Amino acid sequence: MYRIGIDLGGTNIKAGVVKNGKILAKSSIKTGKNRPYGAVIKDMAEQARSLAEAAGIAPEEVESVGVGCPGAVTGKTGTVAYANNLGWRDVPLGPVLSSLMGVPVKVSNDANVAALGEALYGAGKDYRDMIMLTLGTGVGGGIIIDKRLVEGNESKGGELGHVVIRTGGRLCTCGRRGCLEAYASASALISETVKIRRKTPDSALWKIAKSVGEVNGETAFAAEKLGDTAAKKVVDEYVYYLAEGLMNFCNIFRPQAIVLGGGVSAEGRNLTDRLVALMKAGNYGYAGTPAVEVLTATLGNDAGILGAASL
Amino acid sequence: MYRIGIDLGGTNIKAGVVKNGKILAKSSIKTGKNRPYGAVIKDMAEQARSLAEAAGIAPEEVESVGVGCPGAVTGKTGTVAYANNLGWRDVPLGPVLSSLMGVPVKVSNDANVAALGEALYGAGKDYRDMIMLTLGTGVGGGIIIDKRLVEGNESKGGELGHVVIRTGGRLCTCGRRGCLEAYASASALISETVKIRRKTPDSALWKIAKSVGEVNGETAFAAEKLGDTAAKKVVDEYVYYLAEGLMNFCNIFRPQAIVLGGGVSAEGRNLTDRLVALMKAGNYGYAGTPAVEVLTATLGNDAGILGAASL
Repeated sequence: MYRIGIDLGGTNIKAGVVKNGKILAKSSIKTGKNRPYGAVIKDMAEQARSLAEAAGIAPEEVESVGVGCPGAVTGKTGTVAYANNLGWRDVPLGPVLSSLMGVPVKVSNDANVAALGEALYGAGKDYRDMIMLTLGTGVGGGIIIDKRLVEGNESKGGELGHVVIRTGGRLCTCGRRGCLEAYASASALISETVKIRRKTPDSALWKIAKSVGEVNGETAFAAEKLGDTAAKKVVDEYVYYLAEGLMNFCNIFRPQAIVLGGGVSAEGRNLTDRLVALMKAGNYGYAGTPAVEVLTATLGNDAGILGAASL
Repeated sequence: MYRIGIDLGGTNIKAGVVKNGKILAKSSIKTGKNRPYGAVIKDMAEQARSLAEAAGIAPEEVESVGVGCPGAVTGKTGTVAYANNLGWRDVPLGPVLSSLMGVPVKVSNDANVAALGEALYGAGKDYRDMIMLTLGTGVGGGIIIDKRLVEGNESKGGELGHVVIRTGGRLCTCGRRGCLEAYASASALISETVKIRRKTPDSALWKIAKSVGEVNGETAFAAEKLGDTAAKKVVDEYVYYLAEGLMNFCNIFRPQAIVLGGGVSAEGRNLTDRLVALMKAGNYGYAGTPAVEVLTATLGNDAGILGAASL
């Protein structure tokens, strides 16, 4: 039997036919998010049917469909409570897609789904308990315990970016102050890079990003590699706060591994080695506790498809 | 069949014979912690045997023994990696007790065990997912998901007191700065009460605690009830930081309930109502997310016995 995994985003809908953790066929279509939700869901069903056909699979061989969706999803009902990226509120995504396709449909949050994909088939596949953090526009989280997704009541848990690490600190998009997201997201890194670039006109940051608009999550890392001290300050601070967040998750979950995804994770070992060094120095009872591997995600966009298919 | 639950502490060993969540007989003996560990474990076996006899149960009717133990316990092997309160390091508690009693023995951390007790038979019994925090000398934690204890790799997770809520903040006993324990333990509350008492000679705190030695976790709450503004400041700050910690656990786990135990939880609704008010105002996406009940523990010392018997 085959499963279809769909990664619904604000811009693209990526889908794939999956068997035993392998993607047999995949495609990407535009979300066209300003249309009524019914039209978007109809496109998803059409995309899934075309994919099955492309893979040479009869519709009755499709066992189930899984969808990863941004925002707050109620897993039990398959309803999207709200998704800013899609402009959706209380959309019965699961039920509508299921009735169009005639198979069971499971829906979950996109960060959770990516975590499940990495846990089963990616960087986390050799670990039973794993935490995933996606360092992108925000900081997304996924909790895997005993190879299963832990989503909390009405699937509203796993908001690991909204753990306050500095009470009264930087304002977060969620309204609270001091959330990990306000320190460890790519957006936070970019914002700090822009600030220090403005203050240090002789910094290598100006060479790498000629205009403010060119500053991205790699800028500070790149300038630091040229020996720039202003950039090093930004990166050191970023790594420090992220390590504080990771140590918290170690003490809470003591997972076997933490997997980092999202744009900033592209730094690879330059990021993870520095994190591990700080965590070794500061972690609770570290000498007596099992080490936590800090890894970067390996599946890229496929994590969403594979994770969704596994829901 | 019957189970025996043992709550091993630095001062006393409390044990009970349990059937279907009811304690049929219980007893408390002195730990005598400066003896070789073998003597302490032998006493535990003797205590269990006497209890079974007192309850009129034949030794072969005892199905299993569970032990809650302070410090770092490796659940899989039943070994106590280290327990400062007992002066123990790498003590094979489970195997030795099991060989003395001829039944399987499970060992876990005492805070975890108390959480399991409350989850199954106490304040959390109507909830599937529950977080327990004990507000005592330190801040202990227990994570219950789907009515099961989540302990992490080598049972070293669940250290909810050692989640940093204020990077660079107050020094914690664990060596890091800004841990929840440094703000929300009874010790932290006492320390802040002592500080402000010293600074405000006209405070009602002096009436309630005539000497520094008389200051305890209730002092500030009691003085606040007399209208004392210095005491109110201490309590408000205590509640504020604790609420920050609880909101973090809501965003991470979105449990159905958080149960507070330990000395400070004796404040009851005066504490929980204030916490809930802060959490309503500040919680991530609160309007769209299910509320989390904040309750105080109901089993007292029996939580350890009942939880241990259920391991």
